[in-house]
Amino acid sequence: MNHESPLANIRVVLSHTTHPGNIGAAARAIRTMGLVNLYLINPRRFPDPEATARAAGADETLSHAKICSGLDEALAETKFVVGLTARKRDLSHDMVPLREAASQLVAEAATGKVAVLFGAEMSGLSNAELDRCHLLANIAADESFSSLNLAAAVQVTAYELRQASFVAIPPQKPPFPLADFEQVEAFYHHLEQVMYETKFLDPAQPKRLMRRLRRLFARARLEKEEVNILRGILNAVRKSPIK
Amino acid sequence: MNHESPLANIRVVLSHTTHPGNIGAAARAIRTMGLVNLYLINPRRFPDPEATARAAGADETLSHAKICSGLDEALAETKFVVGLTARKRDLSHDMVPLREAASQLVAEAATGKVAVLFGAEMSGLSNAELDRCHLLANIAADESFSSLNLAAAVQVTAYELRQASFVAIPPQKPPFPLADFEQVEAFYHHLEQVMYETKFLDPAQPKRLMRRLRRLFARARLEKEEVNILRGILNAVRKSPIK
Repeated sequence: MNHESPLANIRVVLSHTTHPGNIGAAARAIRTMGLVNLYLINPRRFPDPEATARAAGADETLSHAKICSGLDEALAETKFVVGLTARKRDLSHDMVPLREAASQLVAEAATGKVAVLFGAEMSGLSNAELDRCHLLANIAADESFSSLNLAAAVQVTAYELRQASFVAIPPQKPPFPLADFEQVEAFYHHLEQVMYETKFLDPAQPKRLMRRLRRLFARARLEKEEVNILRGILNAVRKSPIK
Repeated sequence: MNHESPLANIRVVLSHTTHPGNIGAAARAIRTMGLVNLYLINPRRFPDPEATARAAGADETLSHAKICSGLDEALAETKFVVGLTARKRDLSHDMVPLREAASQLVAEAATGKVAVLFGAEMSGLSNAELDRCHLLANIAADESFSSLNLAAAVQVTAYELRQASFVAIPPQKPPFPLADFEQVEAFYHHLEQVMYETKFLDPAQPKRLMRRLRRLFARARLEKEEVNILRGILNAVRKSPIK
């Protein structure tokens, strides 16, 4: 394993996984492709003998899996999050084929931590999870039977990440450093508070508006300095005698 | 499912599979990617409740699986066979990355039946299986842990076949039609007999020589007319008063 590889900066995050067998099979899948970081958000049963059996020797990956109690803990310090989804939703989120998403993940992983997020087996990504993704990726499947097994989707994703890592990508150093997860979340919180205070936020539909704003900023990929500027504006609004 | 697609001409052949769960998961994997033809050579346990459970709704693919008692039955009528292998052998076989093999399979499937062959879980492809492959494909895995689960390998392969099918490939109509599996096998048999008769074949190592000859002709991809010519030569040798 080469920890200099961008693959070492990629987290595979499984949220609320129901079947321990899928966790074990996912550990094996990512290990075969040279990935090392498995994060589990509230797995229903883990550790579990079925997970160990299906890991089939990828014991280290499994035992080093980081168990998280929530989404924010699992995404801490990341600057780019891609969610896998089988649904073709009519969302304002960008949705790209897996191969393109893998290429972007590997490129971003050259300069910082990134995550690829898988929802629960039956329900997929929750709205809270979608809200934290910068990009959605789709595995092009047969329309009449598009339901990949979770571990199979992890295997295909890990395979595409490894394939993407073989392509020499010039390190993408953005002209200005991107804001990390915590900074952006703090900004969203700040924004929401100010919108309440200014009575701009409709108490009947608070979440819908925040969701739309999140998606806007997610597409933009906020820079550190931009977050500072936006929060400066929010602070200015707060102090302003208007309202 | 579009049976006009080249995917309908591709067979996924699993040989001597040990775990019925892998057969079910493979059925689901190929179904999600729009493939329809599953062939099973001497599965250890099939049908089996574990296969049905792991198929998770891909029941038709599973119930239509063709059970074969031998390799030749499973490959009947095919004109191009790719074997999946995790090993990097020093063989005279051509070995290419999976993506390239998938592209060739889809291109050949535009004009005839092709197969992709997976060996048993623990042992991989046997020598008899290798002998019938025109090409070997390798899923680039981490060198320190390269063992993909069988169904995971089928999923990645099916995914690459589907991806390859999206690329518009001008139908490759060879100037002369290729010989099919049965014709080529009959030629090998004919060749072997004549080599015995002519005492060319070393009784101490008969298989080794046939293996080398098979690989030579496999690389060449024999045309129908060429097989006729070669067999004509063999017949001529037989009748010849020399020896």
